[in-house]
Amino acid sequence: MAITLYDLAGAEPNRRFSPFCWRTRMALAHKRLEVETVPWRFTEKDKLPQPNAGRVPVIVDGGQIVHDSSAIADYLETRYPERPSLFGSEAGRALTRFVQNWTEAVLQPALIGFVVLDICHHAAPRDQPYFRQSREERFGRSLEDVVKDREARLPAFRESLAPLRRTLEREQFLAGTAPAYADYIVFGAFQWARAISDFELLAADDSVAAWRGRLLDRFDGLARKSPAYGG
Amino acid sequence: MAITLYDLAGAEPNRRFSPFCWRTRMALAHKRLEVETVPWRFTEKDKLPQPNAGRVPVIVDGGQIVHDSSAIADYLETRYPERPSLFGSEAGRALTRFVQNWTEAVLQPALIGFVVLDICHHAAPRDQPYFRQSREERFGRSLEDVVKDREARLPAFRESLAPLRRTLEREQFLAGTAPAYADYIVFGAFQWARAISDFELLAADDSVAAWRGRLLDRFDGLARKSPAYGG
Repeated sequence: MAITLYDLAGAEPNRRFSPFCWRTRMALAHKRLEVETVPWRFTEKDKLPQPNAGRVPVIVDGGQIVHDSSAIADYLETRYPERPSLFGSEAGRALTRFVQNWTEAVLQPALIGFVVLDICHHAAPRDQPYFRQSREERFGRSLEDVVKDREARLPAFRESLAPLRRTLEREQFLAGTAPAYADYIVFGAFQWARAISDFELLAADDSVAAWRGRLLDRFDGLARKSPAYGG
Repeated sequence: MAITLYDLAGAEPNRRFSPFCWRTRMALAHKRLEVETVPWRFTEKDKLPQPNAGRVPVIVDGGQIVHDSSAIADYLETRYPERPSLFGSEAGRALTRFVQNWTEAVLQPALIGFVVLDICHHAAPRDQPYFRQSREERFGRSLEDVVKDREARLPAFRESLAPLRRTLEREQFLAGTAPAYADYIVFGAFQWARAISDFELLAADDSVAAWRGRLLDRFDGLARKSPAYGG
């Protein structure tokens, strides 16, 4: 029986744009597990398995309900140990957490400043007032204001990718010769951005862009086939 | 036969303060290899095995000469595969490179701005003119000028450790339940600072400080017994 994944969707049900859900989507493909995704909107708390914190991803695997992308990755690794490993080793598991924390402390906070208005435009109409209000409270200004200088911020953003770029100048993937969960964590952030924004974050000759391309192609083009913009 | 390690030293021959040499020192201990260190100063190009780039660490293992901390780590892992692994797996090896690149792109450039004058004061007298001139050219100002606002920079520096801190709030070591080369890379940077500076970089209740303490204790207190300041 396929695993059910509750997956953030916008006005178009097939446009999936949660960085955390993309981690899970790629992890399920890595484990070669069948999945049925359920499009979910920000304001549909009652449509998730109960109880819930109003956040996705959530998976249902047989009778088992698992919330939170990290908990899901750990669950999949433990439940399906005979399938390709998401971490490679105990050291790999812990080092993946460093990559996760870099993504959440550095990469994603920068990305939101580029694409937050685009997210709002792609959200389901009934989600837009909630999304705009909650994010404008967080930023203390309008979403239009947040993104208006994004061109000027681009060089510093690209510079902040140095740890990623230098690694990918030497390695095919963050996990070496084949991708693993650390790759999906970082990729999820870029796939989130490209799913809802045509703002190109990476220079064409950036090793990060080449790596993103390899992951777009992975799993028979799973992420490339999903509705998104160019980059 | 013990491996020879050419190790950066200052005016006091036992004060060892190269972040890259500390990586190698800890890696040799991790592999339980006997080592004899040779104190080396910045201007002693002719005292290293020839040819050389005037940089340490350099090791000599029997007839084999290996330059550069990363090349040394790879050499030790390949040459002594039956001893404790520095990486844990192929994924661990590649993920360690991400930690290295974060250390070299984010952590070490920040640290130099705190301790560069202290390095100069601890360098061998004959090294000091070389050190001061080369670093002042790099910074475009005097070393006194570089460090004079370091107190004011401390909050932003501590904030920049978020990926490290969040990981060490959950894990004993970057490599999980036991340290590995990724830990030694980051630790090398902190050990470099504490070897030559009494400027305390970390708050006492920081999980990064607790982790540093665990690594100071490791290998029978190898790093803790080496001449250094408090932190």
